[in-house]
Amino acid sequence: MLKSTIENVREISPLIHNITNYVTVNDVANIILACGASPIMADDSEEVEDITSVCTALNINIGTLNRNTIPSMILAGKKANELNHPTVLDPVGVGASALRNKTAKELLENVKFSVIRGNVSEIKFLATGIGAGKGVDAAVGDAVTEENLDSMVEFAKSFSKETGSIIAITGAIDLVADAERCFVIRNGRAEMGKITGTGCQLSGLIASFIAANQDNMLEATAAAVIDMGLSGEIGWSNMEKTDGNSTYRNRIIDAIYNMDGNKLEEGAKFEIK
Amino acid sequence: MLKSTIENVREISPLIHNITNYVTVNDVANIILACGASPIMADDSEEVEDITSVCTALNINIGTLNRNTIPSMILAGKKANELNHPTVLDPVGVGASALRNKTAKELLENVKFSVIRGNVSEIKFLATGIGAGKGVDAAVGDAVTEENLDSMVEFAKSFSKETGSIIAITGAIDLVADAERCFVIRNGRAEMGKITGTGCQLSGLIASFIAANQDNMLEATAAAVIDMGLSGEIGWSNMEKTDGNSTYRNRIIDAIYNMDGNKLEEGAKFEIK
Amino acid sequence: MLKSTIENVREISPLIHNITNYVTVNDVANIILACGASPIMADDSEEVEDITSVCTALNINIGTLNRNTIPSMILAGKKANELNHPTVLDPVGVGASALRNKTAKELLENVKFSVIRGNVSEIKFLATGIGAGKGVDAAVGDAVTEENLDSMVEFAKSFSKETGSIIAITGAIDLVADAERCFVIRNGRAEMGKITGTGCQLSGLIASFIAANQDNMLEATAAAVIDMGLSGEIGWSNMEKTDGNSTYRNRIIDAIYNMDGNKLEEGAKFEIK
Repeated sequence: MLKSTIENVREISPLIHNITNYVTVNDVANIILACGASPIMADDSEEVEDITSVCTALNINIGTLNRNTIPSMILAGKKANELNHPTVLDPVGVGASALRNKTAKELLENVKFSVIRGNVSEIKFLATGIGAGKGVDAAVGDAVTEENLDSMVEFAKSFSKETGSIIAITGAIDLVADAERCFVIRNGRAEMGKITGTGCQLSGLIASFIAANQDNMLEATAAAVIDMGLSGEIGWSNMEKTDGNSTYRNRIIDAIYNMDGNKLEEGAKFEIK
Repeated sequence: MLKSTIENVREISPLIHNITNYVTVNDVANIILACGASPIMADDSEEVEDITSVCTALNINIGTLNRNTIPSMILAGKKANELNHPTVLDPVGVGASALRNKTAKELLENVKFSVIRGNVSEIKFLATGIGAGKGVDAAVGDAVTEENLDSMVEFAKSFSKETGSIIAITGAIDLVADAERCFVIRNGRAEMGKITGTGCQLSGLIASFIAANQDNMLEATAAAVIDMGLSGEIGWSNMEKTDGNSTYRNRIIDAIYNMDGNKLEEGAKFEIK
Repeated sequence: MLKSTIENVREISPLIHNITNYVTVNDVANIILACGASPIMADDSEEVEDITSVCTALNINIGTLNRNTIPSMILAGKKANELNHPTVLDPVGVGASALRNKTAKELLENVKFSVIRGNVSEIKFLATGIGAGKGVDAAVGDAVTEENLDSMVEFAKSFSKETGSIIAITGAIDLVADAERCFVIRNGRAEMGKITGTGCQLSGLIASFIAANQDNMLEATAAAVIDMGLSGEIGWSNMEKTDGNSTYRNRIIDAIYNMDGNKLEEGAKFEIK
């Protein structure tokens, strides 16, 4: 399953429209290329519908919102829905400002997302309107742990049912759920949190995977999450003594570039609940 | 010829004004520094004329257009023309949206460019208004090949005659033409296409080279294209087993940093048609 | 002293609000993470006060000004002052355009900055309104040298007295002064100037250090400057034959990631005047 998923990305090489933040945009573009897809970034309201139309999927990330790009996100999202294109929402830092909260709400009301991916604080905020992480990071008390795993799985399934979107909650333990099934994924390393934008990169990766696996989006999302986590492990195993977070960033994207279906199958650590 | 061209960049260290996209801007700045020039990025219409005035050349890239920066491009371009500064246009993704098409047309009508650099789909679109690549990449059927080389050389020369600009069409085979002569360059590697922004970087490099070689812009443009392709080859030869596209990006810019006139002369693969 | 300063950053892990340019923003985010703090970037006027409120310090950088973000800088700066948050101003390229000059003046009039960091041309321009560097680089004739050291130390102290801000003038010799004392720092390497944004990165580092050492901001600023310079030395010592400025960028941030209090104490080269 995982094997064919990644192979489809390389074979189809889907074009992904990204409306994303200017902090991590370069890494998002490079990770999309690394997995075999192709990125285009465009955020002016005068062109986003055109760009969405020539692409296969749309990835919306609210990491650096501004008043010009919010209407672009809505326009592109509606066009993607109209064309039945897969869509991803990454609600970066929701909970940290009224503008992010309002924008996330507006996006959820106007656009149907195939996948919503965030850290646990972000997803909890979307679901309940309560709580907030630490800026763009999850609050410590919010983590998915072995202790609260069953209730978090139920939460993810229930929020999926409510929104009609696949819910990806990523952190030390990753959950990828639709209303019925939840992948519980244990790949990855804590040091990935010391790189800016691993979450944004993952959302770009998910958009690439679901674009190439439209009949199988739950598995495709899980495969992207596993690919990222496993590449975090492989990248770390390639670290030299003097390396730090900047080189680690490169090593993870490099590992995505060198990933193949067999390695992904062998390295995957997950169960389905 | 190539030798003195690159040495002039290091000796003069021209300051280059870039109005460019936010995806690849950091790599553009670093490659300009790597070759010995100095970058400044500024795109607000209130300051672009000031900034162009203190610089030696202007590099305009439409990779992430927005309504605020389009008038800035026109203002800066006109100022650069007035001051007789070398100018580069990189029409990223032209053909993919009406906004890009309209903006490229407006730029060509209002600004005289010393060099227009794009992939073959972008340049064809500028010349004929027909066809489009795949987002920001060239369409497969558009490639310059050994089979269509002579007609593509004629096309490049003819579009140069029409626009008065040096035309740089980059891909597996690169063409750099004025109305009379065309450099056919065979440096580079296909894997460069798996890094975001190698085209944007090359446009910054061309701006640096023509700024320091204003009496010799055709050769300077060809030298920049050769420098990029050869650095792609050298960077690849330095790749280790676990490296991928993210590290390759660094290795190419590093190779530009370590390039000198002799290496450039020795590694260059070109003919003049 | 240096030891506890850096340890406080790792222990407290302050959240830093950055309104900064889109050229070097990714490296700024990664260096803030590397030193143990946490970055958030937000520049829309509708959310900057919210974001500043959930953060511990504010870092304002005018590297790519635009009309939308200038009011955001003022709003965030005033809010940070109201909350008594440490603030940093990085007046990138002041002197190069009327817009940068006007904006820097407006910021100094409306916001009290804990630290102002720039190259010598930028700081001289702020202090005297005269002269200008070369784009975003210092003019050659402006350098702090052994010959003019005493008068530059007096200049820094005097400008600190005038503004009430700690003044950090960085270059071959770095000065970090309040009205009474000036750290003269001789860490660093000239090759750091061949990487875009080492100055911007340093401003993010300073914001992180003063956020975690609010009772001791002069020493904290000096510690951040020493950390950057020493990491430049360590990063250089890790360079391999084919490395250039792009990899050097990674190696410096990696060295910040791997820095600890003892290494910082041992490697520091400074005197107090």
